[in-house]
Amino acid sequence: MTAREVIQKKRDRGELTADEIAFFIRGYLSSEIADYQVSAWLMAIYLNGMTSQETLALTRVMRNSGKILDLSSVAGKKIDKHSTGGVGDKTSLVVAPVAAACGVADPMIAGRALGHTGGTLDKLESIPGFNPRPSPGQIVKILKNAGAVLMGQTKDLAPADRRIYALRDVTATVESIPLITASILSKKLAEGIDGLVMDVKAGSGAFMPNLRMASALARSIVDVCRSMKTKTVVLITDMEQPLGRAVGNALEIRECIDFLHGKTPDDLETLSMALAAHMVRLGGRAKSLEAASRLAYEEVSKGGAAKKFREIIRAQGGNDGVVDDPDLLPKAAHIHVFRATVEGFVTRCDAKLLGLACNALGAGRNRVDDVIDPAVGLYVEKKLGDRVRRGDVLCQVHWNDQKRLRKAITLIEPAFEIQSRPAPSRPLIHAVLEG
Amino acid sequence: MTAREVIQKKRDRGELTADEIAFFIRGYLSSEIADYQVSAWLMAIYLNGMTSQETLALTRVMRNSGKILDLSSVAGKKIDKHSTGGVGDKTSLVVAPVAAACGVADPMIAGRALGHTGGTLDKLESIPGFNPRPSPGQIVKILKNAGAVLMGQTKDLAPADRRIYALRDVTATVESIPLITASILSKKLAEGIDGLVMDVKAGSGAFMPNLRMASALARSIVDVCRSMKTKTVVLITDMEQPLGRAVGNALEIRECIDFLHGKTPDDLETLSMALAAHMVRLGGRAKSLEAASRLAYEEVSKGGAAKKFREIIRAQGGNDGVVDDPDLLPKAAHIHVFRATVEGFVTRCDAKLLGLACNALGAGRNRVDDVIDPAVGLYVEKKLGDRVRRGDVLCQVHWNDQKRLRKAITLIEPAFEIQSRPAPSRPLIHAVLEG
Repeated sequence: MTAREVIQKKRDRGELTADEIAFFIRGYLSSEIADYQVSAWLMAIYLNGMTSQETLALTRVMRNSGKILDLSSVAGKKIDKHSTGGVGDKTSLVVAPVAAACGVADPMIAGRALGHTGGTLDKLESIPGFNPRPSPGQIVKILKNAGAVLMGQTKDLAPADRRIYALRDVTATVESIPLITASILSKKLAEGIDGLVMDVKAGSGAFMPNLRMASALARSIVDVCRSMKTKTVVLITDMEQPLGRAVGNALEIRECIDFLHGKTPDDLETLSMALAAHMVRLGGRAKSLEAASRLAYEEVSKGGAAKKFREIIRAQGGNDGVVDDPDLLPKAAHIHVFRATVEGFVTRCDAKLLGLACNALGAGRNRVDDVIDPAVGLYVEKKLGDRVRRGDVLCQVHWNDQKRLRKAITLIEPAFEIQSRPAPSRPLIHAVLEG
Repeated sequence: MTAREVIQKKRDRGELTADEIAFFIRGYLSSEIADYQVSAWLMAIYLNGMTSQETLALTRVMRNSGKILDLSSVAGKKIDKHSTGGVGDKTSLVVAPVAAACGVADPMIAGRALGHTGGTLDKLESIPGFNPRPSPGQIVKILKNAGAVLMGQTKDLAPADRRIYALRDVTATVESIPLITASILSKKLAEGIDGLVMDVKAGSGAFMPNLRMASALARSIVDVCRSMKTKTVVLITDMEQPLGRAVGNALEIRECIDFLHGKTPDDLETLSMALAAHMVRLGGRAKSLEAASRLAYEEVSKGGAAKKFREIIRAQGGNDGVVDDPDLLPKAAHIHVFRATVEGFVTRCDAKLLGLACNALGAGRNRVDDVIDPAVGLYVEKKLGDRVRRGDVLCQVHWNDQKRLRKAITLIEPAFEIQSRPAPSRPLIHAVLEG
């Protein structure tokens, strides 16, 4: 077997065997197969696809390329939640404490901001002192004590994914269902979890631009998880507009804290509590989704979730005082208000443009080594379907640099559209698949 | 413009502009674009194709990546001939001296053996002393004096092609019509020629396995040459069985010498003289193909072509005595005769298997740094349609190493098929296209 033969077989639409896929990935990691061979193979996969058997084999060999967390000493089921990423998508920061409060442990590996989307780790780092890189020994300890740990991908977990993702990023081979499936699940299944709740986002602010692709990804994830004997629920959710109102690191932490204290922006609450309920049910803490949902809501209203959030932050070295006094979080020097110039209904509140605006303010990254400004971002006052009068604030812009503000405004302007009649409303949760 | 954007556009079946193609190739040569980006792009081209405008732009930027031979000081038209490669395909060694004898200069850049096909340069190197790497100054001098020069690709000519070809070879992106077109023509059009006669081979021993692909390549070559204002004739010819009878370096030189002395294996004569006639006509030495053909035959029969071959060999440092005494060429220590075990008609004389057998004997290369044995090879006694009796010699095997002989026999056995009735005969020249 040679690397060229494996590339050629995929190029010619053949179905690769598990052995061929393992040979290729292991050869890459041991430097016997060169990155230029891997990128040609990735493009062939992008264009010719993979069967679910191939995707399974790829996921397995990528997961097995590194260590698998041993969480056997942590009592109860370990359930994680993962999102394909969006704008204002802060549910991880809500569901981890809620699930932990309900007795479901979550060893969550989270990501960084890139492009127009934010990253959970960057948001957490806006909390003074927070350490997103606990040692392997600490991970188990934090999980036992706080019920959740929120951490970055380590070098030992699925190293094949890290190398392949870096190649995909520069070779236009990111948006491929089998490659996304293997990338997500190789990491998630290396967490040693019993179940996974996935949030696959569709829309302008998501990596899957439409429902068709989001559904294909959801099915692919369910198929692989079923074969890997990991329980899964996949929610396909809307990402045409930002989730919640805050977009930007410290602003999003603040919004999550607000939620845990009972202040509830509609869609953030709806989605977070749905995700948390599925985690609680998969984790065996409730027999039905309704019972799980009730339990999750109780933990929010009686303060159990806020308490867990404090514990998680403290266990990871952060200042847990932010949960009671969000003013301890970084704040931008200026707030610009962006107002409606006409009257009507909001018919567009474009997630991608607002994500890019937030990025332009300094909240995101265009290159891996860009430094993030935790304080800047947007607070969206009017969302799809809202009625506005001339002069109403559509969105607050929290800024620190005038040049960056100007760039952001250029992106915010076309993000909003106001028409005399409201557009038909969109469902927040399009579908739920279970594996 | 970024490399990723250019890859993405081709990935999504867009038509690249000449600027985008130039940006990409120049970026690769200046190391701003990495080889793993180029290989992903090549796979996208392999799978999604290129329009003739894109192929033209790619050819042009690859040709312009290096020097272009300045042959303005050489009188008359400069016409080259190129073959896509086959087994026993030795026409270059015949047409260059014939065309030169007719007054058409040929600055031929020839290739090395790789895989199951032979290489003109390796064949020439079986002539004692022959130097396939004359300096730029010598090239013009040899061309003026001998009327033809037979040389290897230099570092300065189309360096982009050399680098891209090396990548294609290890990433399963060789068999692509636009990439083959650009690879061949970037080199050929850097020779400073006025016209080109192409031999595009189709069949088991060729890179184009069938007539459909060979026709597509032929059309692509004609299109690009027309846009580059270079006159072209493309012959689509058969490569199901070896051309002529000899396969192997010194054996093929001997067969060419035999031909120049009037001993004429049918198909080698037919094809070589057709190619030479087109060169003579494109070179303006005859008004019609018939007149050109007559002129070419005259030069063979009156010894003008043999004289030119002597001059070319001498000018490039070789022992021109071989033309009158082929026994000066290297000879294998042993000859094994491979005989028919049944009576009937030859219905298969498989070019690829015989090419691989010859390679197994040591006449070819599996890796770029393999050393070639110039003496070994095959002499095919019976070809498609020939009647054979039990015990007749099908093929002589010239060998030096018993282990290699055994390997070769294993490949020769299935190469021949003898049936009670002859198969329908195949045309040698399937089509002629003119640009």
